[in-house]
Amino acid sequence: MIGRYTPEDFRKLWSDETRYQTWLNVELAACDAMEDAGLVPRGTADAIRAKNPALDVAEIERIEQTTRHDVIAFLTHVEALVGEPARFLHRGMTSSDVLDTSFAMLLVRATDAILARCRALESALALRAKEHVGTVTMGRSHGIFAEPVTFGMVLAGHLAEVRRARRRVAAARVEIAVGKLAGAVGTYAHLSPAIEAAALERLGLVPETVATQVVARDRHAALFASYAGLAATLERLATNVRHLQRTEVSEAEERFSVGQKGSSAMPHKRNPILSENLCGLSRIVRAAVIPALENVALWHERDISHSSVERMIAPDVSATLAFMLDRARSIVEGLVVYPERMMENLSRARGLFFSEGVMLALVDKGLLRQRAYELVQGHAMRAFAGEGELLALLAADPGVTTHLTHEELAGCFDLEHVLRHAGAVVERALGEGD
Amino acid sequence: MIGRYTPEDFRKLWSDETRYQTWLNVELAACDAMEDAGLVPRGTADAIRAKNPALDVAEIERIEQTTRHDVIAFLTHVEALVGEPARFLHRGMTSSDVLDTSFAMLLVRATDAILARCRALESALALRAKEHVGTVTMGRSHGIFAEPVTFGMVLAGHLAEVRRARRRVAAARVEIAVGKLAGAVGTYAHLSPAIEAAALERLGLVPETVATQVVARDRHAALFASYAGLAATLERLATNVRHLQRTEVSEAEERFSVGQKGSSAMPHKRNPILSENLCGLSRIVRAAVIPALENVALWHERDISHSSVERMIAPDVSATLAFMLDRARSIVEGLVVYPERMMENLSRARGLFFSEGVMLALVDKGLLRQRAYELVQGHAMRAFAGEGELLALLAADPGVTTHLTHEELAGCFDLEHVLRHAGAVVERALGEGD
Amino acid sequence: MIGRYTPEDFRKLWSDETRYQTWLNVELAACDAMEDAGLVPRGTADAIRAKNPALDVAEIERIEQTTRHDVIAFLTHVEALVGEPARFLHRGMTSSDVLDTSFAMLLVRATDAILARCRALESALALRAKEHVGTVTMGRSHGIFAEPVTFGMVLAGHLAEVRRARRRVAAARVEIAVGKLAGAVGTYAHLSPAIEAAALERLGLVPETVATQVVARDRHAALFASYAGLAATLERLATNVRHLQRTEVSEAEERFSVGQKGSSAMPHKRNPILSENLCGLSRIVRAAVIPALENVALWHERDISHSSVERMIAPDVSATLAFMLDRARSIVEGLVVYPERMMENLSRARGLFFSEGVMLALVDKGLLRQRAYELVQGHAMRAFAGEGELLALLAADPGVTTHLTHEELAGCFDLEHVLRHAGAVVERALGEGD
Amino acid sequence: MIGRYTPEDFRKLWSDETRYQTWLNVELAACDAMEDAGLVPRGTADAIRAKNPALDVAEIERIEQTTRHDVIAFLTHVEALVGEPARFLHRGMTSSDVLDTSFAMLLVRATDAILARCRALESALALRAKEHVGTVTMGRSHGIFAEPVTFGMVLAGHLAEVRRARRRVAAARVEIAVGKLAGAVGTYAHLSPAIEAAALERLGLVPETVATQVVARDRHAALFASYAGLAATLERLATNVRHLQRTEVSEAEERFSVGQKGSSAMPHKRNPILSENLCGLSRIVRAAVIPALENVALWHERDISHSSVERMIAPDVSATLAFMLDRARSIVEGLVVYPERMMENLSRARGLFFSEGVMLALVDKGLLRQRAYELVQGHAMRAFAGEGELLALLAADPGVTTHLTHEELAGCFDLEHVLRHAGAVVERALGEGD
Repeated sequence: MIGRYTPEDFRKLWSDETRYQTWLNVELAACDAMEDAGLVPRGTADAIRAKNPALDVAEIERIEQTTRHDVIAFLTHVEALVGEPARFLHRGMTSSDVLDTSFAMLLVRATDAILARCRALESALALRAKEHVGTVTMGRSHGIFAEPVTFGMVLAGHLAEVRRARRRVAAARVEIAVGKLAGAVGTYAHLSPAIEAAALERLGLVPETVATQVVARDRHAALFASYAGLAATLERLATNVRHLQRTEVSEAEERFSVGQKGSSAMPHKRNPILSENLCGLSRIVRAAVIPALENVALWHERDISHSSVERMIAPDVSATLAFMLDRARSIVEGLVVYPERMMENLSRARGLFFSEGVMLALVDKGLLRQRAYELVQGHAMRAFAGEGELLALLAADPGVTTHLTHEELAGCFDLEHVLRHAGAVVERALGEGD
Repeated sequence: MIGRYTPEDFRKLWSDETRYQTWLNVELAACDAMEDAGLVPRGTADAIRAKNPALDVAEIERIEQTTRHDVIAFLTHVEALVGEPARFLHRGMTSSDVLDTSFAMLLVRATDAILARCRALESALALRAKEHVGTVTMGRSHGIFAEPVTFGMVLAGHLAEVRRARRRVAAARVEIAVGKLAGAVGTYAHLSPAIEAAALERLGLVPETVATQVVARDRHAALFASYAGLAATLERLATNVRHLQRTEVSEAEERFSVGQKGSSAMPHKRNPILSENLCGLSRIVRAAVIPALENVALWHERDISHSSVERMIAPDVSATLAFMLDRARSIVEGLVVYPERMMENLSRARGLFFSEGVMLALVDKGLLRQRAYELVQGHAMRAFAGEGELLALLAADPGVTTHLTHEELAGCFDLEHVLRHAGAVVERALGEGD
Repeated sequence: MIGRYTPEDFRKLWSDETRYQTWLNVELAACDAMEDAGLVPRGTADAIRAKNPALDVAEIERIEQTTRHDVIAFLTHVEALVGEPARFLHRGMTSSDVLDTSFAMLLVRATDAILARCRALESALALRAKEHVGTVTMGRSHGIFAEPVTFGMVLAGHLAEVRRARRRVAAARVEIAVGKLAGAVGTYAHLSPAIEAAALERLGLVPETVATQVVARDRHAALFASYAGLAATLERLATNVRHLQRTEVSEAEERFSVGQKGSSAMPHKRNPILSENLCGLSRIVRAAVIPALENVALWHERDISHSSVERMIAPDVSATLAFMLDRARSIVEGLVVYPERMMENLSRARGLFFSEGVMLALVDKGLLRQRAYELVQGHAMRAFAGEGELLALLAADPGVTTHLTHEELAGCFDLEHVLRHAGAVVERALGEGD
Repeated sequence: MIGRYTPEDFRKLWSDETRYQTWLNVELAACDAMEDAGLVPRGTADAIRAKNPALDVAEIERIEQTTRHDVIAFLTHVEALVGEPARFLHRGMTSSDVLDTSFAMLLVRATDAILARCRALESALALRAKEHVGTVTMGRSHGIFAEPVTFGMVLAGHLAEVRRARRRVAAARVEIAVGKLAGAVGTYAHLSPAIEAAALERLGLVPETVATQVVARDRHAALFASYAGLAATLERLATNVRHLQRTEVSEAEERFSVGQKGSSAMPHKRNPILSENLCGLSRIVRAAVIPALENVALWHERDISHSSVERMIAPDVSATLAFMLDRARSIVEGLVVYPERMMENLSRARGLFFSEGVMLALVDKGLLRQRAYELVQGHAMRAFAGEGELLALLAADPGVTTHLTHEELAGCFDLEHVLRHAGAVVERALGEGD
């Protein structure tokens, strides 16, 4: 988690302060539930709350130097702060009861912050898609001019994809909102399912179906996979912006701030660096999927190999993804679109993109598809080579005009007609349920 | 897709024959819908169906040598087989309309075959979990004896995890059951959303919200991620079987067939090779997630870089996963469990696993947690070093007996008590909704 | 390994026939060495060679159905074919002595075939780099026009990179040319280091330093990593071809075969599908690195989890990489380059790329860098916005002409001057040792 | 890079202070070379050095808020600190000349620190291998008892593997010790190869053969691949320690510090947490290979997508790997080995591991391998089932004693004989050149 790519809320969320405070909240919720179950004297948790212990990260780390065990260090510190009632904390619990339950709470918060950012990005995309519902631009397949689309469709496609990615993250959020208070090996030897359920409910979580010492790691792997899917979706958006901003294309570009310098050597340059950055960061988020999956196959009731992985990827990947979403929204909101340039590029196609319509008209007139294809391809190749506009070349070929009148031929070259469904497509994306 | 790891149904599913037949089905469903829309003469599709064209894979490949384009080769072949009506096929469509729609159909079939195998594995796990609901075994964390669990719990944990993985695959199946008949760049230039919806409904699919030239690849990435999650879950199961079959543990082992040889050099060996194989194969399934995610960011309305990836991973990974599920089920069904050996291993722990209960009892008597911990740890270390049974060592220490009577102390060493919730945990896993 | 992406030599190399024949060669080389050591009667290996046993893959597989062990099935088959002398084969050996030694031989052959293809690609790149040593084209950073380069430099850069990748593969080839004949756990219990060394020398291999049951898998991981590096290098080449072939750029394109169809719907299209295909395939080769690395940490003296991974990735990845190299060479050899178009694109830059030279000239005249930067940036932005050629704009600004005479200013706009070192760079790449 | 897994020297190495100081060193070395070339007034660099500018990280970051460009911010800051002579810095250079050259210097330093740690680990392994050259222990394949080895061989195997991994890292270090001073697109438009060579030599680097705007990223990918190979090698070591420390095995364990607590719930536990941690961290290091490979295919003369990836993985992965090496060395040095326990486990095998020797003796007496195999397997299975020691069972079978005298049979059960080459294997590993 490096400062450059970490939103402020994520810096706080993954701080040591927040982590230890969350541990305390878990211990207190467990204590509440044990009080109700009669295992711990009434009022213990409230007595500790009343002392409002100020957790000291440095002190906990100092103790851990000796104990080599973080939760024991934490508990020792709490005991030092609040005295007597602390001895009832953690009763019958194992470290992972605290760690995994807390980790679930932090991942839920991180995921909620990511989901909210998704919605903001979706709103931005929806707004721009509506704005450009009728902006005609060239569609490209293989980087080669294909047939026209509207820029609204392009944005609506990204909108629909971000929404799908967000739904997958939301589904993973449900799966990760799972804690455990089931003791050292999941048997509730000194606890009970009822205590666990009560404590977790206070914390907004539900119990693991069958805990081992830990919550099962397939849940976390699913979360990181959903994150990676979202990152890939942002990468597609960013890749397209990069293409649109290419000098030769110049159909859209990232907003360029006053004072910003594109290059130390070439002052005139306006580079799509935000989008390039998104492409790079998506590699980071994507790469976390494999370690997260490797974490699943823990030995027996658990080994701790997953822990170091999670210490690194949970903050890094969630913060990076949140940063990416903020940046993607900012790119979309600020994207400078050049509709005239889009039409200018389109016009260079010499009508080639209408060739399919001509071919279909010929087939409708009775030509075999194969024959029609070859007939049009010949002229298309000539137009492509710069010998003229496709319409003119076709109109001059008796092989074509035998089958199609000049009116019929001209009717194949109608931009409005080929884009008649574009608005409906955008509507479909905008109108999709949440 | 190598023979060794490919179930027969998957060999057929991913054959050239099935692929081309599926293409034909898509073309005919599209033709039906275009007939209804008046774009194509009534009866065209049925006329082709009546000719029951026998697709010849070798011939299609021969044509592709010239055209360098698979769908055109296919259409040329169909035209050769059925003549006249064929010229109405593929009207206004682009290759990807056929390819992506067909691919969705094949992935749906593959996924359904995987889901059915999940359920079979779940049934096997449920049966064995019930069988061993009361089989006591040592729980291990870090590979070190922790506290007792039941083997039924262990199996129930795997059951719950497989079920979760299956649900994720089922969710991805919904997302992948999406086709398109939207033309070269998704604008329906020579088609319509209505034709697409009608044709896809016939094929069991729904339309892509905003198609480019292709169905969006985030859907496929999500499918492969769900596959990888399932594979990781099988890896955990297999890893545990490998541990249980270790010579020193010997608590369970894979069924050994008559005639099977463990080793060419060591004839007596019975190796957990099926489980080791699952661990290896899970690496293969997992590795496909990254390429699938890299496939998402296609350029503009599409590039074809995803295609080669999918040609390789879709058959390989789905077939491998199906093979893994068959094998995992077979391992679970045939697993030879040695409850006596489990108890024998447990007994070697010298009661150490009851130390937590003693510690809690001491805390309940008023000791600070820290003090109780150190008191018990001292004796635990001695018992661990082989100086005696923990109960005896504690009973001889006045620092302990000052706080606990002999009855209270002995009460802390009750196996039935610490496992009193184990049955409920198994029930919870068995009873979980579908 | 699918036919589409498998060169013929790789199809043969990874066939069952070749594998079993290689096993036999290993057994016979070991037999030779054991004859010399007096462990096996003189003439045994030659007697078997004289019978020239025709290995029957189907029969071996039939036997394996019963034994569930491939090497035992193989030996049983050989015994059935050659009778008496066969009983001396495999003496004191373990299956992995045969399997790993054979695997090394096959990987060496595969790698040699890859290295030869690298050299062919390098030759093609060198030829085209020389051809275009003086072809001026626009350099782009961030997809934005930067400063001119020569197309020879571009190709020379790819040449240097392929050469580096090839050297890494060659280094990994040395590491993989390692076999073992050290018995079940590497102790030579019934063999000796001398026998091993003699047998392996016959096979072109050297012994593993410390074998377990197997050759250490870090060697294989290093090989697959070197393959992935090469694939990434081909991906960069392919990505650049795709960019150059973009309609808006059109500076180069893949050779288009007669009869080839770009699209079923758009007959005029010429798509860079070979290059796109390389980008996809590089994802496949890259993805194998992780499973290969996961294979390293085998348990104790070995587990067999690596085997299924290698059965899949060794043929798939080596064949795919060889296919990619053939394809890359073909792309380079056939690349159609449009120098006029390159100059045309360059001319659209309105001289902006000379801005750095102007800035430097101003600094040389005493301006602070910061001031020079801002001065030039202003005019660069105007030129970029289409208000004129940069030279004209600068020449009209007294703030500039105070410092630079018209001659000095014009001197900053000399294409030949800025490219004066381009030839030397190409020479450096061509002249680099092997 | 989180504190927990970052050695102090790496914290400093990757600090902002070190980075900016390295930038300044690069600028000054370039200035020196330009002075020699007459492009910059003599004494400029020394004048700046004399002012010994104290770079202020916070100030640079403040400036970057406006410029959105780190190198420009840095130069602006330097200009503010040293005034006049600063205007000659960075003459004709592009940001990447500074960034990539500096990055190479930092990676070289990081790699040197990793290589030194490798040697320390190798020394520790060599020492322990010598110590245990004659310590007999059971070899396991598939986790199942196979045949005896010595613990010295086990350690020597890890030694040889670490040495191989180190050599790969050293080879990658050579490839990464490459900088560039070739300007915006690698043409030396305002520089020269001679200036570059002179400046880089001062910095311990050599020039990129063909630079684009940047040094080619295949070099960095190779470095990260070599790191991942080393991590995988440490993972194998750590996995084996975890196995040896399993309660049921208990043949070796990590040193347990005074005061260390194994578990908050189970005070007696001594868990191999250091080794488990290494297994987790190896996943992190391994995962970086894919993004590093994805970074290779930059667009044209460069895009900046690689930058964010490198900002994260370069510090994280190098520091983590260094931490892993420190930890691995500490584990090896402190490993508590229990030779008696090793012999005790071995004795539980009932002599089964001598079965191969018996089988060979029978073949030497004229039995067909197949028959000998079956004969021994029968008794091996009985011994395995606990019906007796293998020697006794064989000795009681006339089918065996017909072929082997009692002396011959007993001679097959000689531990010293089967391990006669173990010492030579260890010597081979110790004696291997550097």
